[in-house]
Amino acid sequence: MARSWATLGVDLHLEPTGPHLRRGLTDALRDAVRGGRLAPGTRLPSSRSLAADLGIARNTVADAYADLVAEGWLTARQGSGTRVAGRTVVPPTGAAARPPERHRPLYDLRPGSPDLASFPRAEWLRAARRALTAAPSDALGYGDPRGRIELRTALAGYLSRARGVRADPERIVVCAGFAHGLRLLATVLRARGVRTIAVESYGLDEHWRLLASTGLTTVPLPFDELGADPGKSTGPGAVLLTPAHQFPMGVPLHHDRRAAVVDWARRTGGLVLEDDYDGEFRYDRQPVGALQGLDPDHVVHLGTASKSLAPGLRLGWMVLPPDVVEDVVKAKGGVDTSGVLDQLTLAEFIVSGAYDRHVRAARTRYRRRRDALVAALAARAPAIRVTGIAAGLHAVLRLPPGTEGAVVRAAAYQGLAVDGLVPRYRHPDAVTEPLDALVVGYGTPPDHAWSGALDALCAALPFGANGSGIPFPG
Amino acid sequence: MARSWATLGVDLHLEPTGPHLRRGLTDALRDAVRGGRLAPGTRLPSSRSLAADLGIARNTVADAYADLVAEGWLTARQGSGTRVAGRTVVPPTGAAARPPERHRPLYDLRPGSPDLASFPRAEWLRAARRALTAAPSDALGYGDPRGRIELRTALAGYLSRARGVRADPERIVVCAGFAHGLRLLATVLRARGVRTIAVESYGLDEHWRLLASTGLTTVPLPFDELGADPGKSTGPGAVLLTPAHQFPMGVPLHHDRRAAVVDWARRTGGLVLEDDYDGEFRYDRQPVGALQGLDPDHVVHLGTASKSLAPGLRLGWMVLPPDVVEDVVKAKGGVDTSGVLDQLTLAEFIVSGAYDRHVRAARTRYRRRRDALVAALAARAPAIRVTGIAAGLHAVLRLPPGTEGAVVRAAAYQGLAVDGLVPRYRHPDAVTEPLDALVVGYGTPPDHAWSGALDALCAALPFGANGSGIPFPG
Repeated sequence: MARSWATLGVDLHLEPTGPHLRRGLTDALRDAVRGGRLAPGTRLPSSRSLAADLGIARNTVADAYADLVAEGWLTARQGSGTRVAGRTVVPPTGAAARPPERHRPLYDLRPGSPDLASFPRAEWLRAARRALTAAPSDALGYGDPRGRIELRTALAGYLSRARGVRADPERIVVCAGFAHGLRLLATVLRARGVRTIAVESYGLDEHWRLLASTGLTTVPLPFDELGADPGKSTGPGAVLLTPAHQFPMGVPLHHDRRAAVVDWARRTGGLVLEDDYDGEFRYDRQPVGALQGLDPDHVVHLGTASKSLAPGLRLGWMVLPPDVVEDVVKAKGGVDTSGVLDQLTLAEFIVSGAYDRHVRAARTRYRRRRDALVAALAARAPAIRVTGIAAGLHAVLRLPPGTEGAVVRAAAYQGLAVDGLVPRYRHPDAVTEPLDALVVGYGTPPDHAWSGALDALCAALPFGANGSGIPFPG
Repeated sequence: MARSWATLGVDLHLEPTGPHLRRGLTDALRDAVRGGRLAPGTRLPSSRSLAADLGIARNTVADAYADLVAEGWLTARQGSGTRVAGRTVVPPTGAAARPPERHRPLYDLRPGSPDLASFPRAEWLRAARRALTAAPSDALGYGDPRGRIELRTALAGYLSRARGVRADPERIVVCAGFAHGLRLLATVLRARGVRTIAVESYGLDEHWRLLASTGLTTVPLPFDELGADPGKSTGPGAVLLTPAHQFPMGVPLHHDRRAAVVDWARRTGGLVLEDDYDGEFRYDRQPVGALQGLDPDHVVHLGTASKSLAPGLRLGWMVLPPDVVEDVVKAKGGVDTSGVLDQLTLAEFIVSGAYDRHVRAARTRYRRRRDALVAALAARAPAIRVTGIAAGLHAVLRLPPGTEGAVVRAAAYQGLAVDGLVPRYRHPDAVTEPLDALVVGYGTPPDHAWSGALDALCAALPFGANGSGIPFPG
């Protein structure tokens, strides 16, 4: 039975729910003030008279009034009773502008994400249970800004074993993915007076923007079939590279270039940032070991769980030269640290061998997808050269000059989102001749959508077997 | 059986473990180069001759050499065979300097952390299982920089119900705890040209330092028994407050002051940052509703799971005025976002009612601790006035003037870590007369250590019942 609050001339109803009565009264009264049904300045009935009206204890009303006075909705003055506070409570001006819903393509072959459907949920939950059960209570407190020691130890073992990284838990800092690590390092570089960082002519525009936002100028290195060429450059204080598997072009950095980069760093005291985003996924030969192994005093090794597990984990790591560790910790400021439960779970996931098993299974799955992509293109768009397929989760499809934009639009017409090379992946200041190409990520589509995505891709390509493609010009 | 690598004149051993042979050979050779046992320039035996020596297939040796050439450890030149690369590989200069182990006190009554031993591990794991099982695969990808919609929706419901916040999921941004949110907001304020932020005369030095590090000057507001006094101030562009439970003094902000703060914000267009760090823990009356409810267009409500659950979760939230949302998202830069698994789990934890149950149980537990503290002091240090105990996880123990430092030292002698008010919690520019006091956190010690901690505290206080305390001067 609802009780009407006739005394106030407003149509309020109170559920007489025993111990919640005071709460209900407080809420109802607050809502009435907030919504304008009780105007500023309105004098409320005395607690005695309202209590009688409502058939409840006077104290309940007095308590509710006191709560609302404390919150600023009501005022209580000796001699003038309890009144609605004199300020107008302005309703919020509405929800923040929502970003417009982007039209969702039927198929999405843009690179950057692994197959999220194959995230090992059950294994992860088992690891979480073991990790949280075993963790000391202290682990749940404010922790080491470098990250949990369990995870840093597990990573040191794994990276040394699987990637040839010279890793010591004391020099590892856990971060919220590669971009977070890059921003921290950029902050450190800026604080050291570095103004310029060399990058590859092909890369990810988001990273260049991120570096620019911290005040670093990005200068693209010349690029050829051996990878980026550090040349005799002495200008920049740092260089950002993807040595194991150039993103997005797919070549590993040639050993001469690896040597030259390390030489450059030693000669100039510069810092090499090694983005090892998908070092685990190499199909046709053993993984290329980490560049960091050549010179752990001049190379920062950056890795991430975003490709091997899922971006949503927001877990990455940096293996740092000794003199950089404290600066990075300072840049973090104890503020933007990762949740310990996921850190402990990933540590357990690695140490238990689940990570290796997952990576092996994923490698097989991606390799199968890559093979299907290569086979489909060979059969249906044989003029298209596919490169960068020895590793990773994406391939580069070389297109006839001048056709990139048209192919991307033709793909969109097929309901397929796919990225052209030039707009997102070619540095605006690159001197290398622009190539027409697609960057095709094959990690993302769920298995059931994979053949449809391939059909759409082939149909959009020049010389597609179904004849719908754009012919080579000239 | 280990095979010695006599050919190279170095004492290397290879475990002949079938498919791992190539890997073992690569690793052994890399280690030998890295460790200096194979000097730069050393010519390696041909793959044929080494294979014969080791009794393994020639291809295995050739593959291992190729791997190491690709990694830069070896060089292969037509006509000069395979050699150790000409650069010296410098070993790292050792682990980063470890911070010295701080002497761990026997008891710790410094405030800031909840009781970590009572983190609801089993309930949390159950929620994690439900959340991860129910989540769509998309949830594991790069997500909304504001945080998962499931969590923002759950928070909107909870904050509106429990804290009187006017919350809309679209205006909530998830962050990695209060300090992270504060840094983001400070960045936004600086970008808007704000140079000065008013703070309470008593607060947390870390927050002042954090604000200073983003370029904001902190100006303390006058402070009395009604809380901070915003006065007629028009200078600062923002004010940071703990309205529900002043930290660390413990008073709720008086309703006149609440009104004055909101008036100030409307008059000047300034922003009020409401730090609602422990709004859930109020013992002697209903919680004081959020200041944000008075004016959601001028007040940012900041909350955290650090006190109600555990700091290690690194989960906090901001309810923002509409025009601040986009700026905060921009300040995050898509970089320092929280793991989605914890976000989904907290959402499930709230929606399932587990959060309310946990907070209720914790409130009972903390209240019991508080009562034990008050009783122990009444019996054994009756001259000590205890304030700020109506809520939260800490109390303020007022000391005779001039004794604060001596009491903190006496406590340390008892093996008890406890904070004096002035060094950490009084703004250096505060004009308010400094008070001698201890800030005693009763959340942290595990139950079994609680009575020992109380004994140590009482023994360190002036007029301790056991006579060991420091007498009042004069």
